Amino acid sequence: MKKTIIDPIDLTVEEIDGLIALADDIMKDRTRYQDVCKHKILGTLFFEPSTRTRLSFESAMLSLGGSVLGFSEASSSSASKGESVMDTVHIVSNYCDIIAMRHPKEGAPLVGSKHCNVPLINAGDGGHNHPTQTLTDLLTIHREKGRLDNMTIGFCGDLKFGRTVHSLLKAMARYDNIRMIFISPDELKLPEYLKEDYLDPAHVDYEEVTSLDDVMGELDVLYMTRVQKERFFNEQDYLRLRDTYILDLKKLDNAKKDLSILHPLPRVNEITVDVDDDPRAAYFRQAANGRFIRMALILSLLGLDHEVERL
Amino acid sequence: MKKTIIDPIDLTVEEIDGLIALADDIMKDRTRYQDVCKHKILGTLFFEPSTRTRLSFESAMLSLGGSVLGFSEASSSSASKGESVMDTVHIVSNYCDIIAMRHPKEGAPLVGSKHCNVPLINAGDGGHNHPTQTLTDLLTIHREKGRLDNMTIGFCGDLKFGRTVHSLLKAMARYDNIRMIFISPDELKLPEYLKEDYLDPAHVDYEEVTSLDDVMGELDVLYMTRVQKERFFNEQDYLRLRDTYILDLKKLDNAKKDLSILHPLPRVNEITVDVDDDPRAAYFRQAANGRFIRMALILSLLGLDHEVERL
Amino acid sequence: MKKTIIDPIDLTVEEIDGLIALADDIMKDRTRYQDVCKHKILGTLFFEPSTRTRLSFESAMLSLGGSVLGFSEASSSSASKGESVMDTVHIVSNYCDIIAMRHPKEGAPLVGSKHCNVPLINAGDGGHNHPTQTLTDLLTIHREKGRLDNMTIGFCGDLKFGRTVHSLLKAMARYDNIRMIFISPDELKLPEYLKEDYLDPAHVDYEEVTSLDDVMGELDVLYMTRVQKERFFNEQDYLRLRDTYILDLKKLDNAKKDLSILHPLPRVNEITVDVDDDPRAAYFRQAANGRFIRMALILSLLGLDHEVERL
Repeated sequence: MKKTIIDPIDLTVEEIDGLIALADDIMKDRTRYQDVCKHKILGTLFFEPSTRTRLSFESAMLSLGGSVLGFSEASSSSASKGESVMDTVHIVSNYCDIIAMRHPKEGAPLVGSKHCNVPLINAGDGGHNHPTQTLTDLLTIHREKGRLDNMTIGFCGDLKFGRTVHSLLKAMARYDNIRMIFISPDELKLPEYLKEDYLDPAHVDYEEVTSLDDVMGELDVLYMTRVQKERFFNEQDYLRLRDTYILDLKKLDNAKKDLSILHPLPRVNEITVDVDDDPRAAYFRQAANGRFIRMALILSLLGLDHEVERL
Repeated sequence: MKKTIIDPIDLTVEEIDGLIALADDIMKDRTRYQDVCKHKILGTLFFEPSTRTRLSFESAMLSLGGSVLGFSEASSSSASKGESVMDTVHIVSNYCDIIAMRHPKEGAPLVGSKHCNVPLINAGDGGHNHPTQTLTDLLTIHREKGRLDNMTIGFCGDLKFGRTVHSLLKAMARYDNIRMIFISPDELKLPEYLKEDYLDPAHVDYEEVTSLDDVMGELDVLYMTRVQKERFFNEQDYLRLRDTYILDLKKLDNAKKDLSILHPLPRVNEITVDVDDDPRAAYFRQAANGRFIRMALILSLLGLDHEVERL
Repeated sequence: MKKTIIDPIDLTVEEIDGLIALADDIMKDRTRYQDVCKHKILGTLFFEPSTRTRLSFESAMLSLGGSVLGFSEASSSSASKGESVMDTVHIVSNYCDIIAMRHPKEGAPLVGSKHCNVPLINAGDGGHNHPTQTLTDLLTIHREKGRLDNMTIGFCGDLKFGRTVHSLLKAMARYDNIRMIFISPDELKLPEYLKEDYLDPAHVDYEEVTSLDDVMGELDVLYMTRVQKERFFNEQDYLRLRDTYILDLKKLDNAKKDLSILHPLPRVNEITVDVDDDPRAAYFRQAANGRFIRMALILSLLGLDHEVERL
């Protein structure tokens, strides 16, 4: 495995399968893993705030018996004194054994990894990549459906800017017999380059639609996303589009009985709370899964995944 | 014991007595408890900053051998992305074993507890409740006086908005033969509902006065509070009232030799520093007690209080 | 050893030699030290942000098996409620076993230590002192040169406001046969009081020059500093002076083969990145050393330095 994970497809399909198997095993018997990272330190370098991701990483390391240091926003970092990202990461890599780094600028984690003495995980770089979210999504689909191939997956909402959608489709395109349906208003359609660079070469069968209702019955997995206010030029456009793709219990009438609904969270109102109690709502289980796939990734990057076998 | 502690009177008198006994035992032999929460994680969700309370909780968990994750202000949380408190708590409850939550809005911790998978402690919600402060106060009174009944307790300062006063009087009203004297300017008198709902039904003997000097000699416990600038409409009112109820060594001339002076801290200038060295000044011991009563509460909520017996 | 370290020269030469020897030993065999501070808590009270220093302290404590609590900026502290530094430190000292404190005001750590129940380390107070940076510098010089006496050390850049320069020269003046060359523009020359109070009494041989090139060949150690924008009255002066003392590979042509280049970091552009790969560039090794000298200091202040011998 590479020592720097910037993009989910830095990992081979085999490596991802291995991480999913490891995460499954951790969830089966957490006590076997609770001291494996004793004396190891995770550095969480968050140049922009992201509570969920940061706490999920920290929980992962603490649940392995390790400890955590870091910062949760740029204002508390030396960046405000004009230091380069490369220098900051270089120096902090002397204080810890593995780094999770988030940055508002695309490509910053790659730059940061240049002189990093320890494994580095991109915890989100602008609109670019967020590999541990994608791994969380893949673990969730695998746990909910029992497989990662042979299914129809719908992506709904902001497909233009939605980083998690882009990363997940790149990862899913590598599995067999995946059909993708992209559900969005015209303004928020999937960028062309993703189709050309990832879907077409992999011969993925996909279509683009504007109505969620029309395709609901075909989906095995529905991946909902938040429509972020900051993506719009005016309030009016935002309000009109935001409400178009709200998922409620009524819309689920036509859905398959074993549909799995995912959402990277936080949600604002794109899924109504009455859906939460439906067994098809997998998004809170998905959030819980995030800790375990990160535990698997940390273990693997530190070369400690085989340590457990020997215990 | 309930799994959610919002209000100090969510705990019965017997449960509070048990927590005080446990805290006393921890203070007697800390090493017996230093690994009881190994592999357990406390989540500190502070939607508004409160250093003292947060650090006291963190110290409590670390002193039990556990670890801590969380955030110390709302701006680093997903709340800024429009996520509901219920969702935030729900998700973070997947990453830890127990939660301490502070929020500027009254009732927020109760809402947060709705879908929380782990025990939740209210660490202060607006002007409402702050149960671990009250437990700290009760532990302190018990340690200083050897009892929680049969005494005269004076509450001085901002009794209108002072959350700690409201919580403590509700808790103390349940003990036998408690006399309360409320010392404040007319503008900052105790709200009527507290008398009607808590003092009168418990037949508590109380009176309201405006002069601290007049009643000083009668008090077994004096509970001082900070007069917060932000409670006033104009600077002039603030300055006039703030200085009226300043406690200095001179005012202690008439006090009992075994008076105990409490203050939830931070103080600004309502107690002069020359009082600090008087043996009756219990407020720094009170601050130290905060760690131990929180250790007792965490242990009890995690069901680990009997774990120690077996060691 | 004193229990409060405010100024590097609060430590005797013998104590500093002992800390350097201990740090060297830790670097030789880290596993021997990884549990020595188990059950001990470091409190990091940072009233102003300083990522590098804070993370270095946290890494030090975690690497000793201890744990950490604290705050990273004043806004999350009770200072914002009007509490005195003395009270804040007093109270937090009940929650931990040792404190590292940083404050924008000179003298604040000394005030804070007044009622502090545990050892306290000044982690930087305004333009005043920063003893653990100085200890890091001394450890680095010792590791790079094998000695702390008999050498010529050049200080370059902002010598007027540069706290790290002031602290280091005070510490170095106590060693035998040290020659110092101060390289700066006239506007940023070393303050007179440092020469009168520290260099002259110790009979240190020093000179002041404006050209780095002229003296480069004489130096055993070159201590570079950042020229901070906030020290200047106008942009023009800043830009003119900033670039005058930039170190690049070209300037190193005349330097000794075994020169050691130090910099407290962060750097902005006063050392060009092509110098980083030169074996004489010691500043990243210096940053790494910071963790180990802090481990040595924490161990010594907690009286645990002899604990390891017995293991």
